[in-house]
Order: sequence, then C-alpha cells, then structure tokens
Amino acid sequence: MTYLGLDDEEFIRGKVPMTKQEIRILTLVKARIKPDSIIYDIGAGTGSLSVEAARLAPQGRVYALEKNPEGVRLIRANAANFALKNISVLEKEAPDGLDGLPSCDTVLIGGSSGSMEQILDEVKAKLKTGGRIVVNCITVQSLLQAIDYFRSHEAEFRYEAIQVMVTRLQQIGPYDMAKAVNPVYILTAQKWDRDAASYADMSEKAV
Amino acid sequence: MTYLGLDDEEFIRGKVPMTKQEIRILTLVKARIKPDSIIYDIGAGTGSLSVEAARLAPQGRVYALEKNPEGVRLIRANAANFALKNISVLEKEAPDGLDGLPSCDTVLIGGSSGSMEQILDEVKAKLKTGGRIVVNCITVQSLLQAIDYFRSHEAEFRYEAIQVMVTRLQQIGPYDMAKAVNPVYILTAQKWDRDAASYADMSEKAV
Amino acid sequence: MTYLGLDDEEFIRGKVPMTKQEIRILTLVKARIKPDSIIYDIGAGTGSLSVEAARLAPQGRVYALEKNPEGVRLIRANAANFALKNISVLEKEAPDGLDGLPSCDTVLIGGSSGSMEQILDEVKAKLKTGGRIVVNCITVQSLLQAIDYFRSHEAEFRYEAIQVMVTRLQQIGPYDMAKAVNPVYILTAQKWDRDAASYADMSEKAV
Amino acid sequence: MTYLGLDDEEFIRGKVPMTKQEIRILTLVKARIKPDSIIYDIGAGTGSLSVEAARLAPQGRVYALEKNPEGVRLIRANAANFALKNISVLEKEAPDGLDGLPSCDTVLIGGSSGSMEQILDEVKAKLKTGGRIVVNCITVQSLLQAIDYFRSHEAEFRYEAIQVMVTRLQQIGPYDMAKAVNPVYILTAQKWDRDAASYADMSEKAV
Repeated sequence: MTYLGLDDEEFIRGKVPMTKQEIRILTLVKARIKPDSIIYDIGAGTGSLSVEAARLAPQGRVYALEKNPEGVRLIRANAANFALKNISVLEKEAPDGLDGLPSCDTVLIGGSSGSMEQILDEVKAKLKTGGRIVVNCITVQSLLQAIDYFRSHEAEFRYEAIQVMVTRLQQIGPYDMAKAVNPVYILTAQKWDRDAASYADMSEKAV
Repeated sequence: MTYLGLDDEEFIRGKVPMTKQEIRILTLVKARIKPDSIIYDIGAGTGSLSVEAARLAPQGRVYALEKNPEGVRLIRANAANFALKNISVLEKEAPDGLDGLPSCDTVLIGGSSGSMEQILDEVKAKLKTGGRIVVNCITVQSLLQAIDYFRSHEAEFRYEAIQVMVTRLQQIGPYDMAKAVNPVYILTAQKWDRDAASYADMSEKAV
Repeated sequence: MTYLGLDDEEFIRGKVPMTKQEIRILTLVKARIKPDSIIYDIGAGTGSLSVEAARLAPQGRVYALEKNPEGVRLIRANAANFALKNISVLEKEAPDGLDGLPSCDTVLIGGSSGSMEQILDEVKAKLKTGGRIVVNCITVQSLLQAIDYFRSHEAEFRYEAIQVMVTRLQQIGPYDMAKAVNPVYILTAQKWDRDAASYADMSEKAV
Repeated sequence: MTYLGLDDEEFIRGKVPMTKQEIRILTLVKARIKPDSIIYDIGAGTGSLSVEAARLAPQGRVYALEKNPEGVRLIRANAANFALKNISVLEKEAPDGLDGLPSCDTVLIGGSSGSMEQILDEVKAKLKTGGRIVVNCITVQSLLQAIDYFRSHEAEFRYEAIQVMVTRLQQIGPYDMAKAVNPVYILTAQKWDRDAASYADMSEKAV
C-alpha cells in the first residue's frame, strides 16, 4: 500500500526549495484527491507534491508546470524514482501551458511568480464544480492576491486560510532541540454552486 | 468516498477538549493506517480521532479508551452520527482496559493522566513490529515522559517529534484576522527490529 | 523605578481587545522611546501601550486616539490608576484629530479601521526625521497596507516586519500546558534621510 | 542615550549561536534590570545579552561565564566594540566560577550543559530576595529541568514560562517572505518571600 507523508529525505533535491512533509500532508488532504483525480501542480518545484498526489490518484494524472529547468529535471527524476507513470511535466510559466490541459478536479499552486490572478482565471475555467484549489504562500503579497481573488469571486468560490508553523525537535545527543521550519499559508478554495440545493461534499454524516 | 479531514463543525462536542482538524490530519497520516488496521485511541476525548481513524480502516477496528463519562457519551454519539460500526468504546482509564484487547497496528495517545510510562509498557507488548504510536502532547511534562520512554527503549523504537502551531484566518467582514489554535506536540514512534536486514516500510521507492 | 513590561492583569479591561505584554514590550522597545518623546498612540484601545509609553517618557507626552467610547473610558481609567499626567486622550477616528497635534518622535498604530494610507500620510508630515512608526497588525489586509505604504515611500522610510507568536505555559496542577496568544505582525518603520551622510541612530558602537 | 534592542548585525559573531534580538529584548525586560544591577550571564555565548545588559546597568556589572574559548573571545570583542567597562568575562563552566562572585540582582541563563540544578542551587544562594532569574531554553530537557527546579522550590520562587516564535519577513524584491527564527522558551523566576506582607515589586499601580 502506498502511503501519504513520505519523508523529505526520500526526494532528490536541488537548489529549488521543496515543500516540507507536514505542509504536503495538509495540502493534499485539504485537496481531497480521489483515485481518478486530474490534478494540476502549478509551480511544482522539486515535484514532492506532484509525486505524493500521483500516488494518491493512480487512475488519475498530475500535470506539473514548472518554469525552472532544474525544477523540471528534479520532478522527472523524482517521478522516475517512484516508478510513477501518471505525471506529465511541462516546462512552462503559468498561466502558459494551462489552456491545453483537460478539465481538472484539483489544483495545487506552489508558485505564481506574480501572476496569481491570471493563473486563477485560467484555472477557474478548467476546474470542475466541487473541485478544490489549494495554494501554498510564503509571501504576504501572494497570500493577499489569492485572498483578494476568492473574495471578489464569492459567487463561485468559498475559501479558508490557515498558517502552519512546524518546529522539528532535532535529536542532538541527549537533547531534543527546537528547529523551526519556515511558516506557510495554506489557502483552500472550493468551486461551488451557491444556488445549488445541497452540498453533498460538505457533510460526511450518514444519510 | 470517505475523506480524511472532516471539519471540526461536523462533530458533536461537549466540555471535553477536541483535537483540531489539522492535528487530526497530521496524527492520522503519520500513523500510517491501513484499511484493516487495529487501532487503539487512548484518551479518546470527543472521539474525533476515533471517527476519522475508523473511516480510514473500514475492515479494521478502533478501540477507544476514555475515562470521562461525558467523553464516552460523545464518542458513541459521533460514531453513530457517522454510521460507524467499527468503533468499540471502553469507559476505562488506561492502562486499565488494554490487556484484554487484540494486538494492534496503531496506537493514538491523546491523554495519559500521568501514566505515560505504564501505558507505553502495555502498548509495547501489544503493538506489532513495524506498528506506530502517535502521541499528542499539550503539556511539557507529557512530552518529556514520552520522549524519555522512547529514548530509554531505543533498541525497540525510534521516534520523531514535531510541534505544530496552526493559526486560522477568520473572515470578519473585509478582513482576514489571525486566530491561534493551541500548539500541540506530535511524537511518532515506530516499533522496529533494529537488527533486521531491511526496512521495507521506510522507503517507498520503486524496487 | 518604573519598569517596562507590566503584567496584563494590572490593567482595567473591558470588551476592547488589549495588546498583550510581550507584544507591548517588543513594540515599545522597537519604538526607541526617549524620556522626552512625543508619542501618538493611534487606535489606543484599552490604553495598555499608552500607559507603558507614558511611563517610559515622563518628560514627554502620549496623545492617544481612540474612536470607541468604551476604549476612551478605559484609557482614562488606566492612566488615572497609574497616576499618569502625561496622557491626552482624544475620542477621534484617525486620521481625524491628528492635524492639531504637535510634531512627534514616535507613532504607535494599533488600529486603522481601513484608513492606513491616510493615517500614514498625516503621520509622515508630523514625524521628525529619525522618528519611528510601529504598527501592530492582526489582519493580513492591514499588514499589506502598511507594507505597501513604506515600499512606495522608500525615499523617506525603511522598514522591517516580524510576526510574533507567543505561547504561554499555563500551570494547571502538576502540568505546564501550552496556550497560544493570537499572533501579531509588528512592522517598524524609520523616517530617514536617504541622502544624509551618516546614520547616527543606526549604530550604537563606540565612536 | 543608549537603547535596548541592538540589531543582530551590530555584534561580532562566530560559530557560537547568538541570542536573537527579540529574544534578548524580552529576556532583558522580564529581568527588570536597574541601572546599578549586578547581573550574571551564565552560558553567555557571543555576549549579545551581556552587552545589552551592561548598557542597561551602567552603574552595575555583568559577570559573563562561558566555557567555550571562542565564546570568551567574542564576548570580550563585543564588550570592547561597545566601549563597555562593566563586563567581567570568566572562562568557566557553571556552576564553577559562581562562588567567588558578589550577590546579584539578576541571573540570565543561556546554557547549562546539563547542570541546571547545580547552577540554580548556587544562584539561589547568591540572588537577592526580589531578584529574577531568566532562563532561555532551546531544548525540551533544559526547559523541564528549570520548571522542575522552580516547582520543587515553590516556597522560594514563583515562575512563568512562555515560548516565543518570531518570523522575520525578509524583503526579496517586491516580496516579503516569511523566515522563521528557532523558537525559544523564556522562563522567568522571581525569588520571593512567600510570607512577606506585600509585594511592592508586583504592582506598579499608584499608591
């Protein structure tokens, strides 16, 4: 059985920053990936999210967009290392590259290079109703661009945002020493039909 | 399909503190639950972890131990609300109640009422090799009791510990306002065979 | 001798949110108040910052602006409780009320009700060169409004911004339990003369 | 006028870890240093706390104990750089070196190398009633050793403990990017006379 929550050490890394394990876990769980989901990973970086998403959706596919050639190389190497055949890597800077893709169930956004609004406009057109967008932000500016977008599209999206700060306790001899991991904002938006009668996806209680 | 990461609002709550969504997600993912896992939830509180664990292990079973009668009532109500038939609730204060249980794959510890060492001794005997114990600590004392236990049993366990601090951005009119959730330490220990030749569970890379 | 860092319990409180001790300490130290400083406390709330600032500047004066009548009442009560004669309270919503005030050395901004830019424009005209503005933000929007202002006035201001998250360990019987305090962003801007030959204020090293 | 809260960049640094600015500020304010205070800085490291404490107590003196020769060298260099004549540096591993020192008003503990209890025993004998001990902990073990000491000496000490997590927003081009600083626990203990009639030091309200 494949597991979510691979150790950071299992990925081939380079100079490209990599999303850390706990952030990957929270991002992918809030994304609500199904075994046949079509997923975009925009600003895929090292490919750690793409790899874990592809493993959660064996009958689906991940389209990883990354503008940095070293990142593209790392994503392909990590996909091969896990024998994954369901990741397509595009060396593109979003929103370029999005319009040729099939409709999707889930969008992960790790980097937007200042084009957050244009990326979200393209994604909005491609995302199925009920689908989710999960944005990871490490700058205040990108966080507010994402918040502003969903606030001004409240007929089509609702969102939640959290900040996650993880501190690892590093075992140094007899001591456990606190080492901080850079905090990340995780914004989760769901494309909804505000006028629809029910939200089947919202409630998991027994019918 | 059932999802991990139910909203906190979907649970019936009382005066018993409830583990928050992001902590449940990280706890259950680090626990590496399989569809047929036998799981103990010690100090189960409201039952939010029991419910999510039971949903991840439909062919398995959760044994929830809770000493507080109101907690026991809430766990049963939440299990019924999600039509779950694979949660057994025991009104016991661990380590009482553990010795009659079958061997387990996973142990979640949310409360130890000062008996961390005795609980871990009982659990160690019941936990299958390769199995995991995930402890949530909100006091410094319980964190160090757990760390001390695994450090003094390093032939049988290895562990990692993190502190997770989540801040929710509450939408108040046009503003997103930071509201902190109390930090939790999550300690994950794996029962290993230090002399074994390989760690199949450790690495998920393609063989 | 009067001390910085009064306990939160020493203030008279109401329904108005109060800046917590560690945030007051960091805010007032980064403000570099002198014994004769003229200080504005904009959005003074309960008056906890005004009181501590007034105690640091016995030959100076604090002008506290607060739009909420209950806040005004609390500021006056707290000032009287500490026998402080150097706090003037104005029941005004900034930027109203600023233009009649004398030039200042220090500005503390705790609330801006969406008028951050207008407030900073008024303050910029009143602040002596070398003076400091310290803004406490609890919403993402106010943080970015402040950042945007200083970035677009980089000929006149340089700034730093931090986020501070304090967790108190509450002593409950034999345990020390983690209780989070809502995080606050503290943005400190200094009005400088970019073309000036030296920054006497910058370096405290012996000449 | 000398200020508290020197920038980290103003210190000469080496391979010895240095206490960061916001932690120094909170530590020194909670220590309640007076202009004539006698201060011990135990495990003084780079000397950043010693320097700021010496500046706050120009008629007092700082006794800095540090076991690492490079640390001793850095403390002396930093003291000279700020033309401070009131810092005595002892190349000692506490509790060695303490017994020859005069009574003190304030003790700062940055490192204890596992000897927390012995250090606190020596310090307790030397600390004047009403004096304060402020301990900075980066390991779980040292935090609990300090907590255990004050809990078992509750007739002579009361304490508070907080954890402080600072994130700096680094300005990278048009972005402000979150960079975490390792969290530190700050434990402040006051030597009190539980049977005394009043706590003049406790309350700063007007009499």
